[in-house]
Amino acid sequence: MLKVAVIGATGAVGQEFIIALNKHKWFELTQIAASERSAGKKYIDAIRDPNSGILRWHNREEVPEYIKDMIVSKVEGIKPENFDLIFTALESDDAKIIEPKLAKTTPVISTAAAFRYETDVPILIPGINDNHSELLNIQRKNRGWRGFIAPLPNCTTTGMAITLKPILDRFGIDRVFMTSMQALSGAGRSPGVIALDIMDNVIPYIPKEEEKVQVETKKILGHMNNGSITTAPLKVSCTCTRVPVLDGHTESVFVETKQAAEAQDVKKEMEKFSKNVTITGLPSAPKDYIIVHEDPTRPQPRIDREINDGMTTVVGRIRKDTAFDNGIKYMLLSHNEKMGSAKGAILLAELLKDRNIL
Amino acid sequence: MLKVAVIGATGAVGQEFIIALNKHKWFELTQIAASERSAGKKYIDAIRDPNSGILRWHNREEVPEYIKDMIVSKVEGIKPENFDLIFTALESDDAKIIEPKLAKTTPVISTAAAFRYETDVPILIPGINDNHSELLNIQRKNRGWRGFIAPLPNCTTTGMAITLKPILDRFGIDRVFMTSMQALSGAGRSPGVIALDIMDNVIPYIPKEEEKVQVETKKILGHMNNGSITTAPLKVSCTCTRVPVLDGHTESVFVETKQAAEAQDVKKEMEKFSKNVTITGLPSAPKDYIIVHEDPTRPQPRIDREINDGMTTVVGRIRKDTAFDNGIKYMLLSHNEKMGSAKGAILLAELLKDRNIL
Amino acid sequence: MLKVAVIGATGAVGQEFIIALNKHKWFELTQIAASERSAGKKYIDAIRDPNSGILRWHNREEVPEYIKDMIVSKVEGIKPENFDLIFTALESDDAKIIEPKLAKTTPVISTAAAFRYETDVPILIPGINDNHSELLNIQRKNRGWRGFIAPLPNCTTTGMAITLKPILDRFGIDRVFMTSMQALSGAGRSPGVIALDIMDNVIPYIPKEEEKVQVETKKILGHMNNGSITTAPLKVSCTCTRVPVLDGHTESVFVETKQAAEAQDVKKEMEKFSKNVTITGLPSAPKDYIIVHEDPTRPQPRIDREINDGMTTVVGRIRKDTAFDNGIKYMLLSHNEKMGSAKGAILLAELLKDRNIL
Amino acid sequence: MLKVAVIGATGAVGQEFIIALNKHKWFELTQIAASERSAGKKYIDAIRDPNSGILRWHNREEVPEYIKDMIVSKVEGIKPENFDLIFTALESDDAKIIEPKLAKTTPVISTAAAFRYETDVPILIPGINDNHSELLNIQRKNRGWRGFIAPLPNCTTTGMAITLKPILDRFGIDRVFMTSMQALSGAGRSPGVIALDIMDNVIPYIPKEEEKVQVETKKILGHMNNGSITTAPLKVSCTCTRVPVLDGHTESVFVETKQAAEAQDVKKEMEKFSKNVTITGLPSAPKDYIIVHEDPTRPQPRIDREINDGMTTVVGRIRKDTAFDNGIKYMLLSHNEKMGSAKGAILLAELLKDRNIL
Repeated sequence: MLKVAVIGATGAVGQEFIIALNKHKWFELTQIAASERSAGKKYIDAIRDPNSGILRWHNREEVPEYIKDMIVSKVEGIKPENFDLIFTALESDDAKIIEPKLAKTTPVISTAAAFRYETDVPILIPGINDNHSELLNIQRKNRGWRGFIAPLPNCTTTGMAITLKPILDRFGIDRVFMTSMQALSGAGRSPGVIALDIMDNVIPYIPKEEEKVQVETKKILGHMNNGSITTAPLKVSCTCTRVPVLDGHTESVFVETKQAAEAQDVKKEMEKFSKNVTITGLPSAPKDYIIVHEDPTRPQPRIDREINDGMTTVVGRIRKDTAFDNGIKYMLLSHNEKMGSAKGAILLAELLKDRNIL
Repeated sequence: MLKVAVIGATGAVGQEFIIALNKHKWFELTQIAASERSAGKKYIDAIRDPNSGILRWHNREEVPEYIKDMIVSKVEGIKPENFDLIFTALESDDAKIIEPKLAKTTPVISTAAAFRYETDVPILIPGINDNHSELLNIQRKNRGWRGFIAPLPNCTTTGMAITLKPILDRFGIDRVFMTSMQALSGAGRSPGVIALDIMDNVIPYIPKEEEKVQVETKKILGHMNNGSITTAPLKVSCTCTRVPVLDGHTESVFVETKQAAEAQDVKKEMEKFSKNVTITGLPSAPKDYIIVHEDPTRPQPRIDREINDGMTTVVGRIRKDTAFDNGIKYMLLSHNEKMGSAKGAILLAELLKDRNIL
Repeated sequence: MLKVAVIGATGAVGQEFIIALNKHKWFELTQIAASERSAGKKYIDAIRDPNSGILRWHNREEVPEYIKDMIVSKVEGIKPENFDLIFTALESDDAKIIEPKLAKTTPVISTAAAFRYETDVPILIPGINDNHSELLNIQRKNRGWRGFIAPLPNCTTTGMAITLKPILDRFGIDRVFMTSMQALSGAGRSPGVIALDIMDNVIPYIPKEEEKVQVETKKILGHMNNGSITTAPLKVSCTCTRVPVLDGHTESVFVETKQAAEAQDVKKEMEKFSKNVTITGLPSAPKDYIIVHEDPTRPQPRIDREINDGMTTVVGRIRKDTAFDNGIKYMLLSHNEKMGSAKGAILLAELLKDRNIL
Repeated sequence: MLKVAVIGATGAVGQEFIIALNKHKWFELTQIAASERSAGKKYIDAIRDPNSGILRWHNREEVPEYIKDMIVSKVEGIKPENFDLIFTALESDDAKIIEPKLAKTTPVISTAAAFRYETDVPILIPGINDNHSELLNIQRKNRGWRGFIAPLPNCTTTGMAITLKPILDRFGIDRVFMTSMQALSGAGRSPGVIALDIMDNVIPYIPKEEEKVQVETKKILGHMNNGSITTAPLKVSCTCTRVPVLDGHTESVFVETKQAAEAQDVKKEMEKFSKNVTITGLPSAPKDYIIVHEDPTRPQPRIDREINDGMTTVVGRIRKDTAFDNGIKYMLLSHNEKMGSAKGAILLAELLKDRNIL
C-alpha cells in the first residue's frame, strides 16, 4: 500500500478524493489537510456550514466512516516525505506556492491549473496521452525534485479530448467548435454557484474556462518529440456556460475533419478506441471508456453521469455536419467530479504506479 | 379596428396571443377557437387541467378580463370571411389542412411550420426581410386566394437570423455553428416537457428543430429576385437542446465571416442596425430591437427575457473566434413566446397593415 | 419461485416493479400488461415517448436487460390463473373493474385506492399492521374468491403511519396535523407534473390526497377485533403540496400525544421499534426500518431518499411541540416509489408468502 | 421630501430598498452604506461578484439609474443627524451595535431581529397593529433618544400575522400550527443558499426561524395596555423549511379557533378586513391587502408573488379542519422581500409619517 495525503480535502473535489480512496486497493489515505478554517477539526465537523448547519457533502454516497473522525491538518502541517504520493485540490494561486514544496520530495497529482502550461509539465488523461508521462522524469531532472507535479486537465477539457482522440487518429482534425453546458459542482462548494443566480437560468460565462480548454486540448492531443510536446495542429474555439444541473458537463461539439467521416465510422472508431484503451485493468478504470448511444435523446446528465461510477465518457447524436465540407458533430457528457477530477486523478496515479513512474 | 380571430387559443402560443391582443390599438379579437376538447367552454375553463385542477396559464400577467368568459369555438366554427386577419397557433399537420381553407378569403399569420418551405411563401421577421412580403401578393395570385399564409419562423431561428443580419450585411458570412439551450415553454403545454424529464437535466435533442433552423435562416437572409427568394449562400449547422429554463432561448453562435471583423465592430453594426430598424413606430415594436451587453455574464434568460416585453434580442460576449481565420462568436437570447412567436406574429401583422399588404 | 405478473407495467410505479423484481429470490415476473397504446410492443419501445423520442424511464438504474424485449400484453390478455400473484399499478377507476376479475383466482397486491376503504379489505404496511392480513382470508370467504385484493396505502400515508405507530403504542395520540411536500414522481409520468407548472413553484393542492391520508392512517393504526378493523381513535388533518423534487415525500408532522413525551424518548421508541420490526429477514426488508437523525438539517429528500434502496423511513427534527400541552413535532422522509409504492408492494408480498397467506 | 439613508444597501433586502425608493413620492435616498468590502465603490460595482463576475442583482426590475453611480459609504460614514429617517438591512449582531447609535438622533426602521423582543420596542405590521406605534414614543423617552428603532417582523411572520388577525378578531384563536416552505431569497445573497444544497431538495431547517415566528406572532397580535404590550394568549408552533423557489414564502396553517368557523365566514372576514384596512391611501399600500382564492391550486409562489408588486398576502384553500373541534386550515403566500421586508419597511415609514410619529 502506498501512503497518500489529500490537500484541500474538504471542498468539492476533495470530497470526491475521500470517496474514491475509501478501501482503495493500492493507496491508503493517512492524512488530510485543508484551509485554516478547517484545520484542527474532525473531518465531519469541518464540512459542516457554520451558518446554516448544513453538512456540505453533496455526494450520492454517505460520508465514509473511515474519514469522519480524521483530524484535518493545516497545509503546512503536511510533511511530504511521509507520503508516497500527494493529491491536491487547491485554488490555482495556492497551488503555485504549495505544490513545488511538496514536489521536492514527493509526486503530486494536482487538479489545479497552476502548472499545466509549463513546458516540462504534461497534462495527462489516462488512456489518451500516457506517453506524455515521460515528461515527468524530465521535469524531475530539470527542477532537481525527487517528486513531480502532474496536473489533470480542466474538467471541461477531459471529455472533449477523450472523444476527439479517436477522430484525430483516424480522420485528422482541423477545427473544433464547442459549447459546454456545465454542472454546478464544477464551481465547487465554497460557495460555488448561488441558487438565486442559476435557478431557471443559464449563465453564459465561466471566467478563464474557455482559454483553458482551448490550450489544454491541443497540448493533450500533441506529440512527444525528443522530450517535449508539440501541440496538435488543430484549432479549438469554445463557449462555456453554466446550467442548472448538479453534476455532469454536457458539451456540443462541431468538428471539421481532414478526411470525410461518416457518423457510423466515427462511432466505430470511438468504440474501437474504447475497447482497446490502455488503462484496462487498473482499479479505477471503467468497464467502458466511451459509450456511444444511437438514441438521439442521450446523453443526458441526470441519466448518464453515474454510469460506471462517473468514469465513462458518454457520447450521442453523432451525425454529419451540414456546414463543414468534412465534418461531424456530436454531444458528450463527462462527469466533472469523477473522471474529470478526483477519481480521474486517482486513475492517473494508478497508471503512473503501474508504469513505474510514481 | 381590424377584426381578428385566434385559432389554437388555449395553448402556450395561443395564450400569448390573448395577452398581446389585450387592448391592442389596431386589432380587435372577436373570436377564438381551439380543439374539440375545449370547444364550447369559456376560455377560463378551457385552460384548466381537468386532472390536477391547475390553471394552465403560465404568463406573468393574469388572464385578461376580456377573454375569461369568451366561448371557445370549434376550428370549423370559424368563418374566415368574418375576419380581416386570422392568427393561427396550430400543430403543423393541422395547419396544413386548416390554413389553406382560411386563406381563401383572409390573411393568415401562422406560427406553424406547415407552409414555411414552399416557394411562394416567405418566412417573415419584421425588420429583417420586410421586402420578402412582396411574395405574399404573388402567393395570392398563384393560389387564387384573397388572403395568404404568412408563417413566422421557428422560435429558435428568430434570434439567430436577427443577429446574423447586420453581420451578413457588413462582413459577409460563410458558415454558422449554433448550439441552442431552449426553454421549456418552447415545447408548449399539452403537456410540453415533463418535470421528471428535465429537472437537473439537459435533453440534447429536439425533434426536427435543427433542420428547421438551418433551412429557415438561409431563406430569411436570402434575396428577393424577380418574385422569388434566392437563399443566402451561407452554411448553417445547429445542435438544439432543452434546458430547465421557463422562457427564453439562449444560443451560442460561432460565425465565420467573409471579411475580418473585430468584436467592437460587430457590436457597432448590431447597434446601428437596431437604431435604424424599419419597424420603429409600430405598436408592438420594442424600444430596442437588439441590445448588446459588454458584461460577459449577459444575456441570462431569467434576467433578460422580459426586457421590452420580450421583443428585444439580447446579445453578449461578442468576441473574436479563435478557430476561424475570420470569425466571431457570441451569445444571444430571444424570448421564444414573445418576439419568437405570438407577439412577433402581431408585430408582423402590424407591419403588413402599415405597408398595406394586409 | 412464484410466477407473477405486473399490470400497469409501463408507468412510474410499474417501472419500479420491474426494477424490484429483477433477480428477485422468490418471484419470477413472467408477464407484463399495460394500456392499449403499449400493448403488443416490446417493453423498451412501450416506454418511449412518441413525440419527444425520450425514454420515459426515470430511475437511477438502467432498464434491466430481462425486461427490454418482453412484449407488453393487453390487460385483458392476462389469465390470472396462470399466476401465483399479480401486482397492479392502475388508475383507481380501472382497478375497480379489473382487480376483482383477477382476484377470483389469484391474489392481487394493488397500489390503487379502489378497494382501500371497504370493510373486508385491509390496508397493509409490513411491520406496522401485519395482523390485519387476517382480513384477507375473511375477504376470500365473503367474496367467494380464491385470491384477494390487498391494497397498499397512498404513498403519502406510508411514512406517516410508520412513524406514528411507535408513538401511538407508547404515548397515545389524540391529534395529528401534517403538511406534505411531495415529489414529482408521485404524480406519475403520463404526463405527471408539467415542468412549466412546478419549476420555481409550489402547488398547494393534490386532488383527493388529503382525504386518503386522513382515512387510511386511522384504518392502518386501528385494531383487529373479531374479524374487523376498529379505526384508531385519533384525529388526522393534512395539507398536501407538490414541490420541485424528483423523488421522496417530505412531511412536517405535529402530534398531540395523550401522555407527555420528551423528544429523546420518542427517538428511542422509534429506534426500538425499528430494531424489533417484524419484517426483518424478508428479501426486500431494509437494514433500518426507521433512521432518526440528530442533525437538524436532515432528512433531505435528495440526500436521504435512496438509503437502503428507498425502503427506510428517515426522521429528523424530533422536538417538543410548543402549542400542545403534550405534543411533539418532527419531519419525515419516505420514498414514494420505493417503500411507498412498488417495492413496498413486493415487501408485502414477501410478508404474505412468509406468513402463508399468499 | 424626507431625506433617508439605507444601511446594508448591497444585500438582498438592501436592493429591494433601492427599488422601492426609486422615485418615491415622500422619501429621497441621499446616502447608502454597506460593509468594508463595498465601501468606496460605485453601487453598480459593489454588487458585482468578484469571482464569477456576475451582477448580484436578482430583481425583475433592472438596477435603477439613480443608484448606479452612487458611492457606497462605510457604515461609520453615515451621520444620522443628516437624515430624517434611516432604513437598515443588517445582520442582527451588527444591528445591535449600530442601530442605537443612529437612533439617538434619527428614527430607524430595521429589518433585523436585534431589538424586536425588547419591551419598549413594537414589531409593527402596517394595517395589523398600528396602535403599537405608541410604544415608539415611550421608547424615545425611556432611552433618551430623539429617534427610535422600529423593527419589522421576520419575513415568515408577516403573512401569518396578517391572515390570523381577522380570524382572531372574529372567532378567537387558541392554537396555530404552521409549516413554511420558504424561498431562497429569504436567505440573502452573500452567499445565501448554495445551488448544490437546494436543487431537487428541501432543507427541513432554518436556524432560529421558528422561535422568531412563534414569539413575534404573539407580540404583534397582542394588546397595548398602559404603554406596554400584552402578548396575545394563543399558542403557536412552527416548522420552517427551505424549498427551491426564488421568491415568496408559502405557509400551511392550521388554526384552532375559540368559536366554530365556517370556511366561507373566514373568507368573508379576511376580505372585509382587507377592504377596511387602515393603510389605504399610503403610497406603497397595495390595491388588495389580502386576496382569497377559491381555486384550490392557489396561491402558488411563482404565479402569485408579484401581485400588487408583492405587497398583497394571498390566501387559498380555506377549509374546515378535520382534527380540531373548532378549526380551519389554509395556505398563504407572502412575498418575503416585498411586504415581508424592504417594501414593507417603506410602507411602515409612510404610516409613521402619516400618523406624525416620524
